[in-house]
Amino acid sequence: MKLANVDGRAVLLTADDTGIDVETASGGKFGPGLASVYENWDEFRAWARLPPAEPGVVFTRAQLGSPSPAPRQIVAIGLNYDAHAAESGFEAPEGLPPTFTKFVSALTGPDAEVVLPAGGDVDWEVELVAVIGRTATRVAESDAWDHVAGVTIGQDLSERVTQLAGPAPQFSLGKSFPNFAPVGPWLVTPDELANRDDLALGCAVDGETVQDGRTRELIYPVARLISALSRTITLYPGDLVFTGTPAGVGMGRTPKRFLRAGERLVSWIEGIGEMRQTFVAAQED
Amino acid sequence: MKLANVDGRAVLLTADDTGIDVETASGGKFGPGLASVYENWDEFRAWARLPPAEPGVVFTRAQLGSPSPAPRQIVAIGLNYDAHAAESGFEAPEGLPPTFTKFVSALTGPDAEVVLPAGGDVDWEVELVAVIGRTATRVAESDAWDHVAGVTIGQDLSERVTQLAGPAPQFSLGKSFPNFAPVGPWLVTPDELANRDDLALGCAVDGETVQDGRTRELIYPVARLISALSRTITLYPGDLVFTGTPAGVGMGRTPKRFLRAGERLVSWIEGIGEMRQTFVAAQED
Repeated sequence: MKLANVDGRAVLLTADDTGIDVETASGGKFGPGLASVYENWDEFRAWARLPPAEPGVVFTRAQLGSPSPAPRQIVAIGLNYDAHAAESGFEAPEGLPPTFTKFVSALTGPDAEVVLPAGGDVDWEVELVAVIGRTATRVAESDAWDHVAGVTIGQDLSERVTQLAGPAPQFSLGKSFPNFAPVGPWLVTPDELANRDDLALGCAVDGETVQDGRTRELIYPVARLISALSRTITLYPGDLVFTGTPAGVGMGRTPKRFLRAGERLVSWIEGIGEMRQTFVAAQED
Repeated sequence: MKLANVDGRAVLLTADDTGIDVETASGGKFGPGLASVYENWDEFRAWARLPPAEPGVVFTRAQLGSPSPAPRQIVAIGLNYDAHAAESGFEAPEGLPPTFTKFVSALTGPDAEVVLPAGGDVDWEVELVAVIGRTATRVAESDAWDHVAGVTIGQDLSERVTQLAGPAPQFSLGKSFPNFAPVGPWLVTPDELANRDDLALGCAVDGETVQDGRTRELIYPVARLISALSRTITLYPGDLVFTGTPAGVGMGRTPKRFLRAGERLVSWIEGIGEMRQTFVAAQED
C-alpha cells in the first residue's frame, strides 16, 4: 500500500498520480488527513485491503505534502553508517547513535524549494524515514517493525556552519531551517518492499550522484533503532524517525562541496520513489 | 492571569486551588484544553479580562497537567548561564547556546513521580519555561515578549550517563526519559510578574537548596532567545522553550551528587510557584 498526503487529505494510491480519497471512500471513518489514519492504523490497514470502488483522485506532485504532516515527534539519528561516521571525523558510536530532532517547523513535502541561509554551508543527507503506526514503548527488536506504518524518503538538510559552531554541536538547530526536512513523496508499507532491511538509497546534485548506499549498512537498522529508542522515549503514531545518512555528504569531500542557488537535488530510495528539491539564495534582510 | 491544565481542561485561576472552567465560562468559544487557548491567544486575553461570573472549580495538585499539554515543539537550551557553563566544563558560547529538544513523551505535570533509570545518574536543572502565544518567525527582540503567552517552571531532568556517552552529546535522549520534563504548576502571564526579566529561581533536594539563581543572569534572556530562535525555526502557539539552568547542578559538585530513590525535589520561581517531584528506583526488567 502507498499513502500520500494530497493537499492535506489522505489518499490511497492506485498509481503515481492517482488514488482514492480515504475520507470519502471510508464514509468518514478515516481521514481527512493522514494523522487520523496513523492513529487508527490497525483498523485502517484492515479496511484498506478491500476499499470500496471509488472514482480516482488525480493529482500533481505540487500537491504532495509530508506523509506525516503533524508528527508529535521527529527523531533524527546521526552517524548510523560506518563510512559516514568516518567521513565526518567521528568514530562510529558503540551505543545508540547521536539522537536529536529536526524541529517540526522545518517539515515539508517532497519537492519544496529551499532557501539557502546567507553565509551558510548547506549539505545533503538522504535518509530512510520510518513512520510510526503503533505507540511504541519498550518494544523488543523482533516486534519493532510491527510498530512501523511504513517508510518514506527524507533529506536531513544540514547547515554546517550553524551545526558545528559553539561548545556543543547544534545538530537540531543547524538542521531545522525552513524546509530543511523534506519528506515524501508518499508512505510505502513494508510488505511492498522486496527487502525492507536492504534498500538502495542515494541522491544526486544536478545529475551527479553524490550518495549511493544501501540500508543494510545501517549500524542500527530500523528494528534495532526503534527498539532502542523506545527504551527511553515513547514513539507515537505519525512520528517520523530519520534513520541516518550513508557516506557521500559534501562536508566529507575534498574539497568540501555545498549546495548552491539554482542547483537541483534528487533523492531516491528503492521501492519508494524520488524527491526533488531546488535551492535559491536568501533575500537580504 | 494564571492558567492551569486541570485534568486536561483549561482553568483560569482565582486562587491556587480554585478557578473558572474556560470552556464553560466562554460558552465553548475557548477550550476545553489549553491548546485551543494558545491558538486563539489574543482573543482569549481580551475575553479573560472580564470573564463572566461562574461557580469556581476546586481542584487538587494531583489534577494538574503541563500548562501546555501537546506542544508541537519543545525547545531546550543548554549553557545559558555563565556559572553553569563553567561548572559543566564548557566555555560560554558566543552565539546561540546549544539548542536541543526534550521529546514530548517526557512531558508531564508539576508533581510527577519520576523513575530513576537503572545505572543512570539523574541530575536536576531548574529552568524558566516560556510558553509561546503567537506564531513567531523572525521576530525582533523588542517584539519577542509579545509572542510569549506566559511563563512557568520546568525541570530539565538529565540522565548524565546517557547524555555524555558517545561521540556527540546525547542531550535530547539523556533528557527525555519518562517524566523528565515536568512543567507547571501553571502559566503566569508576564504582567503578573514584578520584573519578567529578573526572577529568582532555584531548587532543593530534601530541603537543601542546590540551585539558587536569578533570570537576569541569563546569557540569552527570554526576548533575545525567542528572537534568535525565530531566525531559524518558527515557534508555534503552545510551544515550550526551556531557557537553561543556573549553576548548582549535581554534576558540577565535588563530589558529584545525583538524585536517589526516595528523595524529593522542590523547584520554585518567584511569582510563579513550586513544583515537587519524587524519585523511585526502576523495576528490574
